[in-house]
Amino acid sequence: MSDPFFIPPSGADLPRYAGVPTFMRLPYLSPEDPRRAEVELGFFGLPWDGATSNRPGARHGPRALRDASTMIRAMNRATGQTPFAAMQCADLGDVAMSPVDQDEALGNAEAFIAGVVEQGIRPLMVGGDHLCTLTVLRALRAARGEAFGLILLDSHTDLYPPYFGGQTLTHGNPFRQAVTEGLIAPERTVMIGMRGTAYDTEDFDFGHRHGIRIVQIEEFFDRGFGPVMDEARAIVGTAPAYLSFDIDFIDPAYAPGTGTPEVGGPTSFQAIQCVRALRGLDIIGADLVEVSPPFDPSGGTAWLGASVLFELLCVMAPA
Amino acid sequence: MSDPFFIPPSGADLPRYAGVPTFMRLPYLSPEDPRRAEVELGFFGLPWDGATSNRPGARHGPRALRDASTMIRAMNRATGQTPFAAMQCADLGDVAMSPVDQDEALGNAEAFIAGVVEQGIRPLMVGGDHLCTLTVLRALRAARGEAFGLILLDSHTDLYPPYFGGQTLTHGNPFRQAVTEGLIAPERTVMIGMRGTAYDTEDFDFGHRHGIRIVQIEEFFDRGFGPVMDEARAIVGTAPAYLSFDIDFIDPAYAPGTGTPEVGGPTSFQAIQCVRALRGLDIIGADLVEVSPPFDPSGGTAWLGASVLFELLCVMAPA
Amino acid sequence: MSDPFFIPPSGADLPRYAGVPTFMRLPYLSPEDPRRAEVELGFFGLPWDGATSNRPGARHGPRALRDASTMIRAMNRATGQTPFAAMQCADLGDVAMSPVDQDEALGNAEAFIAGVVEQGIRPLMVGGDHLCTLTVLRALRAARGEAFGLILLDSHTDLYPPYFGGQTLTHGNPFRQAVTEGLIAPERTVMIGMRGTAYDTEDFDFGHRHGIRIVQIEEFFDRGFGPVMDEARAIVGTAPAYLSFDIDFIDPAYAPGTGTPEVGGPTSFQAIQCVRALRGLDIIGADLVEVSPPFDPSGGTAWLGASVLFELLCVMAPA
Amino acid sequence: MSDPFFIPPSGADLPRYAGVPTFMRLPYLSPEDPRRAEVELGFFGLPWDGATSNRPGARHGPRALRDASTMIRAMNRATGQTPFAAMQCADLGDVAMSPVDQDEALGNAEAFIAGVVEQGIRPLMVGGDHLCTLTVLRALRAARGEAFGLILLDSHTDLYPPYFGGQTLTHGNPFRQAVTEGLIAPERTVMIGMRGTAYDTEDFDFGHRHGIRIVQIEEFFDRGFGPVMDEARAIVGTAPAYLSFDIDFIDPAYAPGTGTPEVGGPTSFQAIQCVRALRGLDIIGADLVEVSPPFDPSGGTAWLGASVLFELLCVMAPA
Amino acid sequence: MSDPFFIPPSGADLPRYAGVPTFMRLPYLSPEDPRRAEVELGFFGLPWDGATSNRPGARHGPRALRDASTMIRAMNRATGQTPFAAMQCADLGDVAMSPVDQDEALGNAEAFIAGVVEQGIRPLMVGGDHLCTLTVLRALRAARGEAFGLILLDSHTDLYPPYFGGQTLTHGNPFRQAVTEGLIAPERTVMIGMRGTAYDTEDFDFGHRHGIRIVQIEEFFDRGFGPVMDEARAIVGTAPAYLSFDIDFIDPAYAPGTGTPEVGGPTSFQAIQCVRALRGLDIIGADLVEVSPPFDPSGGTAWLGASVLFELLCVMAPA
Amino acid sequence: MSDPFFIPPSGADLPRYAGVPTFMRLPYLSPEDPRRAEVELGFFGLPWDGATSNRPGARHGPRALRDASTMIRAMNRATGQTPFAAMQCADLGDVAMSPVDQDEALGNAEAFIAGVVEQGIRPLMVGGDHLCTLTVLRALRAARGEAFGLILLDSHTDLYPPYFGGQTLTHGNPFRQAVTEGLIAPERTVMIGMRGTAYDTEDFDFGHRHGIRIVQIEEFFDRGFGPVMDEARAIVGTAPAYLSFDIDFIDPAYAPGTGTPEVGGPTSFQAIQCVRALRGLDIIGADLVEVSPPFDPSGGTAWLGASVLFELLCVMAPA
Ligand SMILES: [Mn+2]
Ligand SMILES: [Mn+2]
Ligand SMILES: [Mn+2]
Ligand SMILES: [Mn+2]
Ligand SMILES: [Mn+2]
Ligand SMILES: [Mn+2]
Ligand SMILES: [Mn+2]
Ligand SMILES: [Mn+2]
Ligand SMILES: [Mn+2]
Ligand SMILES: [Mn+2]
Ligand SMILES: [Mn+2]
Ligand SMILES: [Mn+2]
Repeated sequence: MSDPFFIPPSGADLPRYAGVPTFMRLPYLSPEDPRRAEVELGFFGLPWDGATSNRPGARHGPRALRDASTMIRAMNRATGQTPFAAMQCADLGDVAMSPVDQDEALGNAEAFIAGVVEQGIRPLMVGGDHLCTLTVLRALRAARGEAFGLILLDSHTDLYPPYFGGQTLTHGNPFRQAVTEGLIAPERTVMIGMRGTAYDTEDFDFGHRHGIRIVQIEEFFDRGFGPVMDEARAIVGTAPAYLSFDIDFIDPAYAPGTGTPEVGGPTSFQAIQCVRALRGLDIIGADLVEVSPPFDPSGGTAWLGASVLFELLCVMAPA
Repeated sequence: MSDPFFIPPSGADLPRYAGVPTFMRLPYLSPEDPRRAEVELGFFGLPWDGATSNRPGARHGPRALRDASTMIRAMNRATGQTPFAAMQCADLGDVAMSPVDQDEALGNAEAFIAGVVEQGIRPLMVGGDHLCTLTVLRALRAARGEAFGLILLDSHTDLYPPYFGGQTLTHGNPFRQAVTEGLIAPERTVMIGMRGTAYDTEDFDFGHRHGIRIVQIEEFFDRGFGPVMDEARAIVGTAPAYLSFDIDFIDPAYAPGTGTPEVGGPTSFQAIQCVRALRGLDIIGADLVEVSPPFDPSGGTAWLGASVLFELLCVMAPA
Repeated sequence: MSDPFFIPPSGADLPRYAGVPTFMRLPYLSPEDPRRAEVELGFFGLPWDGATSNRPGARHGPRALRDASTMIRAMNRATGQTPFAAMQCADLGDVAMSPVDQDEALGNAEAFIAGVVEQGIRPLMVGGDHLCTLTVLRALRAARGEAFGLILLDSHTDLYPPYFGGQTLTHGNPFRQAVTEGLIAPERTVMIGMRGTAYDTEDFDFGHRHGIRIVQIEEFFDRGFGPVMDEARAIVGTAPAYLSFDIDFIDPAYAPGTGTPEVGGPTSFQAIQCVRALRGLDIIGADLVEVSPPFDPSGGTAWLGASVLFELLCVMAPA
Repeated sequence: MSDPFFIPPSGADLPRYAGVPTFMRLPYLSPEDPRRAEVELGFFGLPWDGATSNRPGARHGPRALRDASTMIRAMNRATGQTPFAAMQCADLGDVAMSPVDQDEALGNAEAFIAGVVEQGIRPLMVGGDHLCTLTVLRALRAARGEAFGLILLDSHTDLYPPYFGGQTLTHGNPFRQAVTEGLIAPERTVMIGMRGTAYDTEDFDFGHRHGIRIVQIEEFFDRGFGPVMDEARAIVGTAPAYLSFDIDFIDPAYAPGTGTPEVGGPTSFQAIQCVRALRGLDIIGADLVEVSPPFDPSGGTAWLGASVLFELLCVMAPA
Repeated sequence: MSDPFFIPPSGADLPRYAGVPTFMRLPYLSPEDPRRAEVELGFFGLPWDGATSNRPGARHGPRALRDASTMIRAMNRATGQTPFAAMQCADLGDVAMSPVDQDEALGNAEAFIAGVVEQGIRPLMVGGDHLCTLTVLRALRAARGEAFGLILLDSHTDLYPPYFGGQTLTHGNPFRQAVTEGLIAPERTVMIGMRGTAYDTEDFDFGHRHGIRIVQIEEFFDRGFGPVMDEARAIVGTAPAYLSFDIDFIDPAYAPGTGTPEVGGPTSFQAIQCVRALRGLDIIGADLVEVSPPFDPSGGTAWLGASVLFELLCVMAPA
Repeated sequence: MSDPFFIPPSGADLPRYAGVPTFMRLPYLSPEDPRRAEVELGFFGLPWDGATSNRPGARHGPRALRDASTMIRAMNRATGQTPFAAMQCADLGDVAMSPVDQDEALGNAEAFIAGVVEQGIRPLMVGGDHLCTLTVLRALRAARGEAFGLILLDSHTDLYPPYFGGQTLTHGNPFRQAVTEGLIAPERTVMIGMRGTAYDTEDFDFGHRHGIRIVQIEEFFDRGFGPVMDEARAIVGTAPAYLSFDIDFIDPAYAPGTGTPEVGGPTSFQAIQCVRALRGLDIIGADLVEVSPPFDPSGGTAWLGASVLFELLCVMAPA
């Protein structure tokens, strides 16, 4: 049972649009704050899009998601969970990442997350573009000493080959890089939702060579989210796994605010059911990435993203 | 067969974007107009959002819905109905409701609706926030002398406990208030579409204590709208019932223009099928509420709302 | 195997947002360009909306679709096709059509398309409002000497009777006109997706009198896109057929940027599956019409339209 | 002193966003209404943009301007005028104009306005594109039997030569046509605000050949609106004159919602001062044209247009 | 010289879009925080619009202004001031104000501000609608024991008579109420920028009866902001004065995001010069009100509002 | 007199919204095109924003400016110039610049521009963020063998010290870098329009140390654009000079679509007069940078940018 310090105020006491916006209205704890030691799960932002090959803007994601997340209430109506009561959560702030210097940016993020992990806080990262995920994977891998499983909900595999004359660190490469660096266990990796056009089959080929299971959207709709997620659970198993959610997994009618939308995706209901289906797994960290506020003028994508963040939180909470 | 006076002009004669916009291009009849005596069903607006706990703007709903509704044509392609020919309809105007004085606002609305009901006109109210519905329920209850059934399509139960230090009249309370005041018969009440986060289970508990049937969205998607609506018809039965449609019932990808959106809802097709499934019931009044134009920059929610209004009209029309 | 001249540059070499935007980043070939003789399939724009009865703006469609289409890559992930490699495609430019003189506009379009067809180039027209399709049908009919089949994906039949005091050439009339002029074979014509309100049944009656198969949206959702498209294939058969795609076929949550949206339509996934189901038919020409950029502030409709254009291309490509 | 029937309700009694929106909240009087005989000045809409060479949408102008104009109150703070009290005004509705048939559209408008003028009502027309003005000029000229002066506030002269292969009736031609038809007296015509790029000097040459005074924007800013308007008053003199206000006269930062914006124009304050400077002239009719709501997503242009309409009204009101 | 704790981080260290957004990136100090005792000037939000007669949304103002204000840097380029170094500033949070209960809302605000004033913190309030100002005036008057001067920059006097059947507490009444309650000294009160339409002259008459100086916009533009502000300084004198800035003072081309815009106002440069002209006066408190984010889709009004807030801060800072 | 090949089509022949959009509807000439040898002035795009410290999106500038520039006509009404007839202009395309690799991006741009300059084509660059200017300056300096003057219209000096831990190549540094590299002659450099907040005075100090003339906005408004530009002409003299136009020079009410707006700037009229005042100088190259389409939802900034581009062209054209 959480200390009251870690319980967000209710909208019936302080209207949901009032107050300094932190993730989920949780307390903000700077790296030096002594109460960080009590935190079990930490939200933090990586406001950076320096690896974006197409439309930028995900650097503004954490700001917009903090704002929208103040609309979230205490209880998950579908599962009955009250995650803030079940584990002590906090907003750990954003990492200072240079928008003009990739090495500096990634280095700062890795150092910050190493500190978070070291304190025994499970990370729930808010991007930023998908390369941000690589910094979390590196920090977790370093701390744990072994590779872990991965569940990716995305319209892209992000296993693409080098881009633009050999660049290996773009938001289309993090999982290829993660396999290469031995961060994730490919045979316990499953990727769901792939669709749209491609330059070639090199990303799929790479994945298949390494034993990654890739579920294209046609299979997803054909079998339904239930059977697909059952298979995903089986692949991941009971060992530790990381959960990465690219907002472009969801159809752009629901989530227009992203840099590389692909039409023909799942509804928000289906997407949320996919997350819920993962309850009980050993999720060691998670993220939501690629929300790009400049392409989300009415804020609907931020609101959907905040709702997804809450579901990620619930799947990481004790049953 | 309606008098030609009550038949809206065709867009093939006067383009749909032309002319002074009344609901469905129907004649506007002020309270003093003698032709009001001939009206069988009356649209009117309650342009008021003074009970809104979160994002305001529903006060602008009637204006936007009048505008969008001029795109509606004569016939319902799916059912073959021509409601304007089947019963004499009119636009009865808006009620003057103070945006800064709740008592004055609700009082004016109740007096206006009492007059409408007294003239034997079935009310089709356009909100405004959901507390506006309470004024219609009160007027109908007073005129009929007994409680009636209720079908609510909404993502919320609006059975919430008092808000912000004891306030019982917010847009989260109308049906709790209606049960307490004996306006509706809880055992003939069904609520469909509930989802999202909650502060606690108090609203559900209240409903269940009084015998209200609540269908959460997971059940809705699991069983399908057909079986759910069959059950709803059985609950309501053949006795008089009121139909209330909160636009936030529909997923925010379809209806972003509302103050308290909840992700993971039905499509507009599914929502419309829910309304159509109620044909043949004894619907004594209906409403569409919570369309908030400031959050609907492209007008899509208003257009969807106008389409829903037409379906509400058809379900109230003679077969 | 296409000449490299006809292969669009990759986004990994030139970012997708860079460069002069042609359809799909294909080479632009003016009517005088000698390489036109090598073209097998030609995109061109009819930037004209002079037959629009309601909200205008489709004249801006080709511009917006060129822009969005530069996001398309080489391969269709679902089918494995690489259409630019399979047949030589080009952007043939736009036709100069007067916005204030319907006769002049249609005449110019017909002359241009006659030239395209004469060169043996299969046309893939980008509108413009739906009356633009009539000019393609006329040119193809003149060149082929006989009527052909038609598949229409639209929320309207566009078989409406004359409008506004006898006007027969509006965007609600092209297929009525096409039947009357003997351009299409009604018994090999199928129309899918019809919904919304109507003035009367005259368009359906006309279609049924001539043997056209009309699939309303309720039937579409009830049976599913697979069986419906199987029937469509059977109706069209192996003889030549034209494929016309009105963007308002898709639900306005997915495609708000159009002049006459009708709620309750298919998702983008379902719409794309409908197109893919037509592989193997003898498609002699196709179009995408009614994308209206002024009603598409966030560009999502243009992006969906570009994705549909790519699917139309793939269904016209060698297997 | 106006009959109370002609006094708009106050926003302190009925909130400004409530009620069926007519121009300035005035009574709507159809052509058959007997109270039309009491009207001294009539607003009406010409919802038509069939002569637009560039971006369409002005057909939606009257709808948007009715909506915005309900924010106007009773008194002009700057001049102290209360025009609704000073003369009896009404909303005469919109003319049915075919969007696909220019002859039919212009003919209907001319017939309608002839009726208005015949009843002794001074016309205040709301467009629609600038060709709509021609129909007012024709009706006034026919009724009066002689040409009259003209004040044009616009960023264009609309004296352009035929367009697109000889078309003489576009929104770039109305005043050239009016001179040619002898509707206006060129030597008592003044045009103010011209700027931007041009194809050539043919429009200026035409104007100068006929004795029209053209004030380019550089001269306007250099001399100031006071001296310029003094000269305008002198040119027009005390004889009857028509006042036409193209919203693109004002800088697009203030009035983005128009089809052919030209940067570098006056502020809204300067524009309004230009109108006020015309008090005391014999203004026989006026209009506001080219407001295009699809390019005015936030409604600011409609609100500015409504404010301009009120100033036009005041300049036509008794002192 | 401020303690480093009170110096906002530089955008060169933490990008301006990163981090939890507080006003000006200042430390957030809750009422219980012991460091509040060190604060000299406190920003706080009154997220409430329950007194709004027209378009609502100002309740969202503090959230949007916190977000935009993180773009503000350390130094005022024009004046050379570095206000955060010159006095210790903080973000004191938002007051919990019920959106559905005016008495409760105003009471909470007054109690909160009384606490702020009691701690010797000069208040810089961020609204909310203009009635919020009344709560600051009441708290300051109670603490000081005597009335003080007022400078109002607004397009309205907010001296209007009761509204909607006698309601005296709307956003059109705060200064009438303040005069009546003896909070402000009318003979040391100046109001600048009035324009637009009015119901009558009652607000001006009331002001003039009490000796308030009202500068209409025509006089403002005619004399220029320099002489007008010189006069304002002379009226206010060296005694304590309050400064209230309604964002609708500025022309809606610059500040569209407000509920009651009036065209024909000053530019942002002129508005800022008006504030700067007040340096050296004894400003005991200030506010910025009526920023309404739902009507500010591109965020420009929030950014302008944040810039105005910084100028208000500078005018309150030691020279 | 230009060859007809280099004359853009008229909107009276091909509507302005039709056709493949190149800059000003000029012919597109790839680097290999033999007609490049005939070009006197070349437009090209640097679609890159990898040096942006705040809000990204300028990478989309060239695309949006090509689109908007098709609205430009042949003649500058104010000056009478017909620049396309006076010198042969072309669209040279965009440079392929990696969004994720600054060295690669800048290198590619420099190589491309070196080729342009080598062919004797005067460059008119379209950004992209302001660091893009550095690549043009380097190429011109290399080709000419000596430093040249600079006129900068911007709200920032872009002389800032290193950013984010020593990064010297951001869009806040190009002119500091240019001075350091000896590309520009500081004593013949003038910067106009500076305003807003700053971290400190280091940029001004650097400029003043090197003899750069900096005109803050207060001086600009106080003296007027005429005297300021006279002084600018005197500073630059008759020797070669480069002209750089950052769209944030203009007030954000006119140009919201940029990443670092500063309120209180000049109008578009004043900005254009500043450019026109430079006629007759020896302008060896020019640019327009920092147009960021994601922050320009209504396209007004792109249209203003296109208008500025035309004025830049005219000031570079023979008298
Ligand atoms: Mn991804
Ligand atoms: Mn992705
Ligand atoms: Mn509700
Ligand atoms: Mn609800
Ligand atoms: Mn169609
Ligand atoms: Mn259609
Ligand atoms: Mn005009
Ligand atoms: Mn014009
Ligand atoms: Mn005010
Ligand atoms: Mn005000
Ligand atoms: Mn710059
Ligand atoms: Mn700048």
